Amino acid sequence: MEKTPPLAGKLWLVGAGPGDPDLLTLRAARLLTRADLVVHDGLVSDDVLALIPPDVERVSVAKQRSRHSMRQEKINELLVREARAGKQVVRLKGGDPFIFGRGGEELDAAREAGIDCEVVPGITAAAGCAAQAGLPLTHRADASAVSFVAGQCKDLTDQNWSGLAGHGRTLVIYMGLATASAIADKLITDGVSPGLPVAVIERGTAADARVLRTLLTDLGDLVEREAVKSPALIVVGKVAARADALDCLGAAAFTTSTRDFSCSF
Amino acid sequence: MEKTPPLAGKLWLVGAGPGDPDLLTLRAARLLTRADLVVHDGLVSDDVLALIPPDVERVSVAKQRSRHSMRQEKINELLVREARAGKQVVRLKGGDPFIFGRGGEELDAAREAGIDCEVVPGITAAAGCAAQAGLPLTHRADASAVSFVAGQCKDLTDQNWSGLAGHGRTLVIYMGLATASAIADKLITDGVSPGLPVAVIERGTAADARVLRTLLTDLGDLVEREAVKSPALIVVGKVAARADALDCLGAAAFTTSTRDFSCSF
Repeated sequence: MEKTPPLAGKLWLVGAGPGDPDLLTLRAARLLTRADLVVHDGLVSDDVLALIPPDVERVSVAKQRSRHSMRQEKINELLVREARAGKQVVRLKGGDPFIFGRGGEELDAAREAGIDCEVVPGITAAAGCAAQAGLPLTHRADASAVSFVAGQCKDLTDQNWSGLAGHGRTLVIYMGLATASAIADKLITDGVSPGLPVAVIERGTAADARVLRTLLTDLGDLVEREAVKSPALIVVGKVAARADALDCLGAAAFTTSTRDFSCSF
Repeated sequence: MEKTPPLAGKLWLVGAGPGDPDLLTLRAARLLTRADLVVHDGLVSDDVLALIPPDVERVSVAKQRSRHSMRQEKINELLVREARAGKQVVRLKGGDPFIFGRGGEELDAAREAGIDCEVVPGITAAAGCAAQAGLPLTHRADASAVSFVAGQCKDLTDQNWSGLAGHGRTLVIYMGLATASAIADKLITDGVSPGLPVAVIERGTAADARVLRTLLTDLGDLVEREAVKSPALIVVGKVAARADALDCLGAAAFTTSTRDFSCSF
């Protein structure tokens, strides 16, 4: 009798998108139903988790009470161990695995362990929130470049984001709620116009999402007086004035120009 | 007898993703089967178009022989006219409608005409290509910011992209094949290191995609000697050295560091 060969386990790093389950890709949705194990974090919405069949094993590595999530090294170990055991492991991550998702580190771990690994992109928060808010991230009249940064750096003074914002540019700040005031101050100190439009999108793509609009100089105050809650995305740039949003300084404060950047995208 | 009320037409600006039909969102795939009319451009892949049922009317606004696409104003007029006639119109666009997709202009046209308009995000080329190439756009060791620009500007000297590239940053250039050499020269002149890794992803997400890797100073030559064809995406930054790619200068040229940006994304 021949010996059964060991099952070939595999790791899939899968983007769950911004929250609305309708924004999963066809491949991601299919993988959820075919996995042996789904390892997900706290950014994956309940509506997305509801798509996982009851017979599929599920492990959460979401943040615990004390704000500590499972250490990345522990997550890597878990993924490698389960794939080595022959399982089809789906690592389900909010947004896109390669945009502030630490997918690169999990891919590194899989490669080092000789585990077959495939990455399935997801709709990143910027694209999901922008679509819902009617806020084009680029626009021939207003922005020919768009940049994504993460707001929860330990030392904002290390960051020089002024070149990413301002004339002809859109700056999108992920996870920047707690540091919103400091980010705005730093940008203005570094030369970005305090009158630049800003949109804050709270719970983007959810049915109860809120889109608020103000000027850069008012960003910190807005977050406080409107008690904006996480998750929220901050968009800085002229395109923010186009958002289908609640104007928090009165509509008269917002104007758009028709300057063309001679970019024919 | 009561008069039948006029049908309520609607416009959907829908992202078709980077080419692989499996990377459509669930919502996009469903809308394609429910539309009365699909208006698509040349960036939408044949495999995606194959998902449109035969009874759904289809109009292409792709580039014609002489490289002229239908003017944007004509496309806007078409979309408004058909929605006004009561049709459920899907405007299907490669990638994401709001990232170099001119979706903002079509949304403006719909708003001005009083047409109900909804935007469905799509996987943008950067995310789709990065996932396939195993190339994280951000990485705690290498990049805390990622920027997207369009390469086919009429006057590259107008663009100051040097602040978007270099230390801790990933620069993704869409539609930059024809100007690749000039872009590399401009970046290097503006102070970006000529030894920065670069990945060129040709036909990203297709089965016959090619991922090539070199250094910034060699980008123009690489595109020529490998006869890279459109569509192609160019990624400039240390993360490019992580791509699962064909090294076009020999693997020894590529090293990665472990510097941490103190960004805990």
